[in-house]
Amino acid sequence: MASPTVSFLLLMTTVLLSSSSSSPTSQPSDIFPSNKPPRFLGKHSHPIKPNLQQYRYETRFFPQPLDHFSFLDLPTFRQRYLINTEHWVGPSRSGPIFLYCGNEGDIEWFAVNTGFVWDIAPRFGAMILFPEHRYYGESMPFGSRDEAYRNATTLSYLTTEQALADFAVLITDLKKNLSAEGCPVVLFGGSYGGMLAAWMRLKYPHIAVGALASSAPILQFEDIVPPETFYNIVSNSFKRESSSCFDTIKRSWNALSSEGQKEDGLQKLSKTFHLCRELTSVQALTDWLDSAYSNLAMVNYPYPSNFLMPLPGHPIKELCRKIDGSPDCSSILERIFNGASVYYNYTGEVECFQLDDDPHGMDGWNWQACTEMVMPMSSDRNTSMFPAYDWDYSAFREGCRMDFQVIPRPRWITTEFGGHDIGHVLKFFGSNIIFSNGLLDPWSGGSVLKNISETIVALVTEEGAHHIDLRSSTKEDPDWLVELRETEIKVIQGWLDEYHKKMKAISSM
Amino acid sequence: MASPTVSFLLLMTTVLLSSSSSSPTSQPSDIFPSNKPPRFLGKHSHPIKPNLQQYRYETRFFPQPLDHFSFLDLPTFRQRYLINTEHWVGPSRSGPIFLYCGNEGDIEWFAVNTGFVWDIAPRFGAMILFPEHRYYGESMPFGSRDEAYRNATTLSYLTTEQALADFAVLITDLKKNLSAEGCPVVLFGGSYGGMLAAWMRLKYPHIAVGALASSAPILQFEDIVPPETFYNIVSNSFKRESSSCFDTIKRSWNALSSEGQKEDGLQKLSKTFHLCRELTSVQALTDWLDSAYSNLAMVNYPYPSNFLMPLPGHPIKELCRKIDGSPDCSSILERIFNGASVYYNYTGEVECFQLDDDPHGMDGWNWQACTEMVMPMSSDRNTSMFPAYDWDYSAFREGCRMDFQVIPRPRWITTEFGGHDIGHVLKFFGSNIIFSNGLLDPWSGGSVLKNISETIVALVTEEGAHHIDLRSSTKEDPDWLVELRETEIKVIQGWLDEYHKKMKAISSM
Repeated sequence: MASPTVSFLLLMTTVLLSSSSSSPTSQPSDIFPSNKPPRFLGKHSHPIKPNLQQYRYETRFFPQPLDHFSFLDLPTFRQRYLINTEHWVGPSRSGPIFLYCGNEGDIEWFAVNTGFVWDIAPRFGAMILFPEHRYYGESMPFGSRDEAYRNATTLSYLTTEQALADFAVLITDLKKNLSAEGCPVVLFGGSYGGMLAAWMRLKYPHIAVGALASSAPILQFEDIVPPETFYNIVSNSFKRESSSCFDTIKRSWNALSSEGQKEDGLQKLSKTFHLCRELTSVQALTDWLDSAYSNLAMVNYPYPSNFLMPLPGHPIKELCRKIDGSPDCSSILERIFNGASVYYNYTGEVECFQLDDDPHGMDGWNWQACTEMVMPMSSDRNTSMFPAYDWDYSAFREGCRMDFQVIPRPRWITTEFGGHDIGHVLKFFGSNIIFSNGLLDPWSGGSVLKNISETIVALVTEEGAHHIDLRSSTKEDPDWLVELRETEIKVIQGWLDEYHKKMKAISSM
Repeated sequence: MASPTVSFLLLMTTVLLSSSSSSPTSQPSDIFPSNKPPRFLGKHSHPIKPNLQQYRYETRFFPQPLDHFSFLDLPTFRQRYLINTEHWVGPSRSGPIFLYCGNEGDIEWFAVNTGFVWDIAPRFGAMILFPEHRYYGESMPFGSRDEAYRNATTLSYLTTEQALADFAVLITDLKKNLSAEGCPVVLFGGSYGGMLAAWMRLKYPHIAVGALASSAPILQFEDIVPPETFYNIVSNSFKRESSSCFDTIKRSWNALSSEGQKEDGLQKLSKTFHLCRELTSVQALTDWLDSAYSNLAMVNYPYPSNFLMPLPGHPIKELCRKIDGSPDCSSILERIFNGASVYYNYTGEVECFQLDDDPHGMDGWNWQACTEMVMPMSSDRNTSMFPAYDWDYSAFREGCRMDFQVIPRPRWITTEFGGHDIGHVLKFFGSNIIFSNGLLDPWSGGSVLKNISETIVALVTEEGAHHIDLRSSTKEDPDWLVELRETEIKVIQGWLDEYHKKMKAISSM
């Protein structure tokens, strides 16, 4: 579910880029080439939209203040939201409202990739709401995407706190208009959307009774988790399938680099990798491969899926089979190409590969990564199959300055939402949050993996990947996934039961 | 302690003014005469600063982002804060940090009027911090007060959320620099500062372990409490002392109005009230009287004090004695003048009264009242001794638009911080907040007066006025006040004990 998958990856790319800039020979300008738009790994994905008819909703727009926290005389913007009330039992029966915290992409894409919410709404008699995150999809300040993304000034209101306030204002207004003030709101979210859901529950407990935060790496900031965590998990997913596959990938970066430095190297690489246009740098190709591996680790689902791309079940196993099983005469780069084709061309329909397209319009994430969402990442020399590098904040900051004319605030997120002592804070302050994670998901390392209290629970699955639980149920679902979802449903039911009990107690007083 | 006393009053004046505008004969322009600066009742107070030597502190400045929630390229501003570490036992012993949430005025004034924090810091081995609220005192964005208050654009970052974020960023940075991350922070605040303390504990539980919110009317928004609450409490304080005093005041508004409409009425009124300059409207005089009565209700302390003005103990009793005990031949307006002199001239040193001065520089509050802090107030025809009026939001909004070119967001505070279901929210989410209130204080009606849970406690005193508990202890303190403070100390000690226990448990894991 959810493009965070996609956009989180952009961050990794950013990190890879910035790390490359820390080598003595490269200049800061290499980090975020200023002639390029903000980078997104979304461009390396080609999701197929599920059958839209499966999900019926009305599309509405809500006028939002552009800045909730100042009183500058700014134009409002139209926040899009999708709404379905056909199963809602209404205010008289305190029908719950299921609100998915829209993240960095088109809300319709999240809606159709969050089948879990649609699957369970009927049994809860719940309204379904999918508000879009500002600056994504059709929820554009200043009237258009071009205007909203014009420069750092127009982008400056693309922040997490503003997005949460959008949700708070929208739902408060909507409930008032429906005389539904007594209807409990349950939050859902995956990846960055999961972070939003968890933070929303923490910051706006009066707005929502609980949050299902799936694959939400709220601890992937500063030094809370080791920066090499993400790439180690990705790498382990490959190593587990095949150590030779892991080794081949690990050795391939030097091979790519050597080839690229030859006189006709870029031409040859373009041919080997069946690119539509000739490469102008090796970097674009390594990004493309990095995206494939990291995305695959996230969507390493046990059954065929088309979340980011049409893929087989256990796609990493499949990729390694291709790498390891290439003809003996294959060069290392041919093996790598064969492997990458599992991600980029599983259907076999692609004749040549475009490295530059952006189906989700999600490059706002690069702005977010350069402002608040600074998630340090390293690649360990020994344990990672990616090129080794250490997190270099100075180079990262310089890249952001050059690309966006903005200075990141790397410590702001933990100041605003906590993080360093999150176990303590959550235990003694928060309640009603599910952190669900699959250990195959590289983002799981930055999430909450242990129960913190009776009401802050961690649901961890060995075989799960990136917020698989939020997807619609299928006949291929393994037992553990069926059980995971049943547990989530029970916990959510518990929140609602508790809420109704309290309300009853209050009204009988 | 704390000038909120003063500045809250401005709001009442605002309300009175706006209500007057709702009469058919007045125009919106009467509400906030655009040729006047934002109104403050601070101008009707003449506090005497206590002996500063009693409170030793170092003054420092911290560079703060002007907008924590956007990435506009704005200049930082220097936030002033006062710090005392002489009793602090330091990081090695997890010495607590007592942080007073600076409110709408010069922080030095709050520091010297919040003796409770200074009194108890030694026994806790605590550091004392008094950060100043942005846009007050010396903490001016854009380099100077003139620039900061130039217009709605420069004022636009004067919001509660920004102020809380200032505190969060400051304390996080300070603790890091002192390697004091493990030192628990306890928040203190009175009136608006108390609201900040409570909201800070709710929004930043990872930053502070608890909050003493004294006289903090966090429920004085929208329709949460009846709008006539405030003036009813003021009025009752007079009625309790003397029903004839109450009646005289209640009748005086018509007398003032009639007199003002006479040909030489304003001249006569100016003489009767010993004004230094001749009145140009009755309104200025009614404001002046309103301020006296409402301020007296707040500082109706049982012993002589000089918080807002040099006053005797039980000053309302004293005022009513003057009104009721005026010579039989006295006119109603002469009686009123004699009464008001208790507030404005208890020392007898004033030869004539200035209606326009502003010793606290607190007129930022009018901006806050016109943006977020929209607290509806009415004056009930029967139960209030003030002129009757109903809350008229439209007129209020129009006044704000004319005066500041800003449109209020009257529902924002409850969206951001909760309020409508605050008992429910606090019970099941918040912890470690003391709401202390004295029932003589007119703001008590908008505060939390009942225990909500084991850790959200209401300490209510029958005889208390506006955050008397935050004042330094004196020999004249009645027993109930001594007991109140002891209870507060015990509760705070409990928070710290609990914190240390948790930390010990975590470090031994």
